[in-house]
Amino acid sequence: MNIAAGVADETPMRVLIVDDQPIIAEAVRRMLLPHPNIQLIACIKGSEALAKVAEVNPDVILQDLVMPDADGLELVSAYRRDPALARIPLIVLSVKEEPSIKADAFARGANDYLVKLPNPVELIARIQYHARASRAQKERDEAFNALRAELDSAAHYVQSLIPEPIEGRVRTRWAFVPSASLGGDSFGYHWLDENRMAIYLLDVCGHGVGPALLSVSVMNAMQVNALGGADLGDPGAVLSALNEMFPMSKHNGMFFTMWYGVADLSRRELKYSSGGHPPALLYTPGGTDKELGGNEDISGPMIGAFSGAPYGTATTALLPGAQLFVYSDGIHEIMQEDGTCWALEAFLANVSEEVRKGDGSVERLIARSRLIGKRTDFEDDVSLLEVTFE
Amino acid sequence: MNIAAGVADETPMRVLIVDDQPIIAEAVRRMLLPHPNIQLIACIKGSEALAKVAEVNPDVILQDLVMPDADGLELVSAYRRDPALARIPLIVLSVKEEPSIKADAFARGANDYLVKLPNPVELIARIQYHARASRAQKERDEAFNALRAELDSAAHYVQSLIPEPIEGRVRTRWAFVPSASLGGDSFGYHWLDENRMAIYLLDVCGHGVGPALLSVSVMNAMQVNALGGADLGDPGAVLSALNEMFPMSKHNGMFFTMWYGVADLSRRELKYSSGGHPPALLYTPGGTDKELGGNEDISGPMIGAFSGAPYGTATTALLPGAQLFVYSDGIHEIMQEDGTCWALEAFLANVSEEVRKGDGSVERLIARSRLIGKRTDFEDDVSLLEVTFE
Repeated sequence: MNIAAGVADETPMRVLIVDDQPIIAEAVRRMLLPHPNIQLIACIKGSEALAKVAEVNPDVILQDLVMPDADGLELVSAYRRDPALARIPLIVLSVKEEPSIKADAFARGANDYLVKLPNPVELIARIQYHARASRAQKERDEAFNALRAELDSAAHYVQSLIPEPIEGRVRTRWAFVPSASLGGDSFGYHWLDENRMAIYLLDVCGHGVGPALLSVSVMNAMQVNALGGADLGDPGAVLSALNEMFPMSKHNGMFFTMWYGVADLSRRELKYSSGGHPPALLYTPGGTDKELGGNEDISGPMIGAFSGAPYGTATTALLPGAQLFVYSDGIHEIMQEDGTCWALEAFLANVSEEVRKGDGSVERLIARSRLIGKRTDFEDDVSLLEVTFE
Repeated sequence: MNIAAGVADETPMRVLIVDDQPIIAEAVRRMLLPHPNIQLIACIKGSEALAKVAEVNPDVILQDLVMPDADGLELVSAYRRDPALARIPLIVLSVKEEPSIKADAFARGANDYLVKLPNPVELIARIQYHARASRAQKERDEAFNALRAELDSAAHYVQSLIPEPIEGRVRTRWAFVPSASLGGDSFGYHWLDENRMAIYLLDVCGHGVGPALLSVSVMNAMQVNALGGADLGDPGAVLSALNEMFPMSKHNGMFFTMWYGVADLSRRELKYSSGGHPPALLYTPGGTDKELGGNEDISGPMIGAFSGAPYGTATTALLPGAQLFVYSDGIHEIMQEDGTCWALEAFLANVSEEVRKGDGSVERLIARSRLIGKRTDFEDDVSLLEVTFE
């Protein structure tokens, strides 16, 4: 039987009968006698049923409906309210035949309903059926939960690689919303020396565990400055080095887009380069808005796709109070209710508007994107990094 | 109701009734009339039932037992044999009341058994109960399968980072058996120049996705020679560099053990170092067996645990025909049937014995370890690398 796959028949099944009449439990016990692999435990007090179920953790509950000290239907609801007991198969064993009571029992979460005394062959068939289905279910759930816990722990590691927001001469704010437990987005920033800060964001194609493995590798390489001697102050050289270090042919066909910039606070300039990444945005108080990277000549293709692809370096002024936004395309490639994709232009207009409002623009932009997509999660990983310069 | 969590009530439920008497389908149709969210589809030919179920993919099947052109119980078995139909809830709707037939129906995989004509309230309660339970189950299964597929794809990436076995002046053979989809073990080898080959194996604490993220990062750093300028020909320097690059405080508390060696075919020598790793084994034809690393003075602690820990370099002769074995502790830390752990010494004796037998020792050693543990999988990741020098 398909559903019983993997369940060893020799494991004894424990059945707990909750019925105030000992004679019923005794009758059921006799029915089960030919099946030594089914153990019957009786509870004759309705008021003790919840505690007994928790103690015995049976494979199946046989539940009477009318008892002097408890309402059987209420007990069904009570088991179902308790997360630890909610999934134990429950067969109502009742003298009542009214369909409305049966319907009520099912609505409260009973798995089956038998009129007592049931035929032994049928009782045993139903006990075995429910116990096996529940055990198979439990196995699947445990495997699933183990996977989830593993992914959550890995996600914690990925997040721990993103530096905390910083204050001071350079101030950062960011949001990171992976679409799965693990995302293909990563970003970071660190001082190269007293005056120069490297700022980068990358987005591996796809999302999930595979892209996360590559994303974390690139992140770790960035954080330990292990780029094979490339000048970390030259964005084009950094992207060229990464393009040769991580060819897609050696990385399961995965490539990534990346924006890399170096802010120099003493020279008041920002150098940057881009590999297939949407443009970063630079806002200068009272000044102009600029898109950095994107379709500029210095931009190259996505990293890892074409060996020898050129990545150049551009330089722009970094005036006091300037704000830089770097993001992954998950924040604007959102399906709208009418089935069309939200345009990058609309997102850029939003950033522009939110930046003028002052603090909290990262949170407001994430909230706006969620509103557009009419959902709290995103289809792709979403990263948004805001850097404000003194 | 707990089990129905996440199932929208408004999604119509499709019920397929397989019964040769149109009057029964008509009676059931009338019972369901007050419930517009339940759609009834009738199939009056038993011989067409399998195709119809596959076509309709109903939420619930109502199955008659006695039909002129098919045996209803055989049909139940037939649905259950078909992987695409096996999990569709099935309620037998029969005039037969015999308990042995009920038991047979359950044994074949029926989910429920009602005598016709059933009471409408009870029929509807059971249809809703089974449809909701099945939909909730399907959702969980889909989520689980998506996770599995993701992990399998990531595992494929991890395996693709391990170089293929090579022939020539240096010949490699290896086995890699992760305990979960993704393991914390990694290993590799590559030529540093014409005469020198780097050979390494690392084992991140734990196993699963988190350790795989770190393991792949280290692997990628090794393969692109991105160790911040460390001399790759000096094993102690390589492990020292990795120890500073991957401190456990920055990597979710994860550390790893590692063995790193550099074979120089022109000088006929092998340099090596170890960070908390079990000793590699060197066999020389007709000569002595040597344990390399392990408790030697040049060995340091596991990598990432103590900043500034010293890792030295030892040198040993590499005579023609010499064979090197590097492995992770998963291959010998095996629980035996008596509950004790298999000793490293026993494993080392095994290697010694298998090496003398010639080709295929990697496969034979894995088979022996499986035999000791009396299982085909391993509790921890298992890696075994054999390198033979001309």
